[in-house]
Amino acid sequence: MTYCVGILLESGLVMASDTRTNAGVDQVATFPKMTTFEVAGERTMVMLTAGNLAVTQAVLQHLHKDIANNETHNLLNVTNMFDAARLVGMAIRTVHKEDAEHLRHHNTDFNISVLFAGQIAGEPTRLFNIYSAGNFIEASQETPYFQIGETKYGKPILDRVINYKCGLEDALKCVLISFDSTIRSNVSVDLPVDVLVYRNNKLSIDYNHRVAKDDPYFLSVRQHWGEGLRKVFAEIPGPDWC
Amino acid sequence: MTYCVGILLESGLVMASDTRTNAGVDQVATFPKMTTFEVAGERTMVMLTAGNLAVTQAVLQHLHKDIANNETHNLLNVTNMFDAARLVGMAIRTVHKEDAEHLRHHNTDFNISVLFAGQIAGEPTRLFNIYSAGNFIEASQETPYFQIGETKYGKPILDRVINYKCGLEDALKCVLISFDSTIRSNVSVDLPVDVLVYRNNKLSIDYNHRVAKDDPYFLSVRQHWGEGLRKVFAEIPGPDWC
Repeated sequence: MTYCVGILLESGLVMASDTRTNAGVDQVATFPKMTTFEVAGERTMVMLTAGNLAVTQAVLQHLHKDIANNETHNLLNVTNMFDAARLVGMAIRTVHKEDAEHLRHHNTDFNISVLFAGQIAGEPTRLFNIYSAGNFIEASQETPYFQIGETKYGKPILDRVINYKCGLEDALKCVLISFDSTIRSNVSVDLPVDVLVYRNNKLSIDYNHRVAKDDPYFLSVRQHWGEGLRKVFAEIPGPDWC
Repeated sequence: MTYCVGILLESGLVMASDTRTNAGVDQVATFPKMTTFEVAGERTMVMLTAGNLAVTQAVLQHLHKDIANNETHNLLNVTNMFDAARLVGMAIRTVHKEDAEHLRHHNTDFNISVLFAGQIAGEPTRLFNIYSAGNFIEASQETPYFQIGETKYGKPILDRVINYKCGLEDALKCVLISFDSTIRSNVSVDLPVDVLVYRNNKLSIDYNHRVAKDDPYFLSVRQHWGEGLRKVFAEIPGPDWC
């Protein structure tokens, strides 16, 4: 399984993805699910992927090939993020055409979800949630975050804390707590977690970090949060029924 | 959808279920999902149900009919909780035989999960998770709680707080927080929530309460928890990346 979060904030983006993949319980491996595309000073894009690993890798391969071949339309020359998201959707459709029927012969769904975000000079920062069908939706000020993969365990804390006006630091802290909750409740999601922070109009990545099992900041957040929750819990008066 | 939790503790049981059912977004209704069977001083049982409402009601109907007909084996005369859980499983299999094929004609799964718990004099208190196939598992000191329905949003807080030694009051408080998190993140689960507390060897229900939208204790837990979380969150130092 996988857990990825993308948050669009007034001041920029926070994106995070875990690195665990599994095909059954006896085939667990580590693969990065975060890919960046950048022309410093001109465009910065980040893509998080969930789903069938062969499908997500094939889609990335198509996108990279189009860049290498300097195709008329590729992620490094389109002029806006909507067109960039369309290119990702089109790559998904290409892989669907190649693979979906063969997967069906083996009772395997064609399964991919993508969080795709970034900024191209002249446009604001944008965040998209791209589906297996290649179509997509865009985040808004009212709905500033998307999750893909194993989304439910980590949603309550996002719902309580995240809004469009939230600072990048707070959003990053919240994302780490959201991953901690998910990792505690589901063995199919695990550290390391890749996190990326992008500040509007910088047109290069502000912060890109792999949070490993011994990451001092993650361990400190985990400890403070766990202890704080237990303290808050203990301070809530008991029910008056007894 | 539905959310139900059952917790087996050293001192007794805490059971809770929401009351929202929906068949599509335009057919939302309130139905209780908690049923009790009791012979005061001799046995106390509680059953929480999730799944297709017609199936869960049919199963309950069979169990009540067997009691009314004073069948050789019914929930009010079996001598231990394992046999009681087997009767519930057999009722599920009876309804499966009657309805499953007809449901299939309408592309509807035969879908029911049950949390069934209680105590019969001479035995300890026991908690079972009964599946659509009529088979079941029993809670243990190591795995003292089960959830059915929309389980993921409310699992992290249970994972952090609940263990077998936990007191009944703390478990009830934790269950209310678990419901609060679920209700906030998923519109298909909502108040009122039925909660029941059973103290070992009492052989009658200790506390059985419908938590309505304006329940003062629930509102106080919700407020303390929300404010407490925000305070803990604010107190965690920010990341050192900026």
